[in-house]
Amino acid sequence: MTIAGALSHGMKEVEVWLQTFAPGSKTPIHRHSCEEVFVVLKGRGTLFLASSSHEYPGKPQLFPISSNTTFSIPVNDPHQVVNTDGNEDLQMLVVISRPPVKVFIYNDWFMPHIAAKLKYPYYWDAECFDSPKDEL
Amino acid sequence: MTIAGALSHGMKEVEVWLQTFAPGSKTPIHRHSCEEVFVVLKGRGTLFLASSSHEYPGKPQLFPISSNTTFSIPVNDPHQVVNTDGNEDLQMLVVISRPPVKVFIYNDWFMPHIAAKLKYPYYWDAECFDSPKDEL
Repeated sequence: MTIAGALSHGMKEVEVWLQTFAPGSKTPIHRHSCEEVFVVLKGRGTLFLASSSHEYPGKPQLFPISSNTTFSIPVNDPHQVVNTDGNEDLQMLVVISRPPVKVFIYNDWFMPHIAAKLKYPYYWDAECFDSPKDEL
Repeated sequence: MTIAGALSHGMKEVEVWLQTFAPGSKTPIHRHSCEEVFVVLKGRGTLFLASSSHEYPGKPQLFPISSNTTFSIPVNDPHQVVNTDGNEDLQMLVVISRPPVKVFIYNDWFMPHIAAKLKYPYYWDAECFDSPKDEL
């Protein structure tokens, strides 16, 4: 959920989202050419973070995510957020620069950076929209 | 308290602060040429917001601040945050673009914009450092 952002509030330089991951859910492996900060409000998970310096991301570093921790993701570094908890939502405030974000998606950690696929616009909660509504 | 910022984390485009206002405390009336977002975590207060379109700010608009509200401050609009509660801290996450922030301070709402004084670097918690420590 965007709580302050380019499209909705005429902002050009920063965007702030409230992002909630259901138990077991995760982002794709992805990168973007903007700065990103996570401030974790509640829940638990894992941040997987790799580098943009080589031909492909390679085996990522693991960082445990818990409430009241903050992460900054370097520009263009491939990463993935996973809610590892079986019961609790993982909720964080996400700050990005240079909205709107252009997300490049990897199938795995060994896909070359140049093969990652641009998905724009990217709806983090696309799956929520996918399920057809029963109109009756 | 800066939790993710230019100086400490090599970031260039956004900065995130955890800002806590003691009961009754407030910022000066000020402006800065960057985008700013407040996400209020707890407490109560008032946001005073004026415009940069005239020669001086003039009588500001008042917005009540309470937890789980979000504000975005337009670039260069003079504003002031006041913790109006007698007992509870007002705590918010503050996001700015273009760090480090250059703060222009007004004595009152009728001071011309061009007379506002640049204070740089600006330490929001300077008063905390001002009280001399008893070294004994």
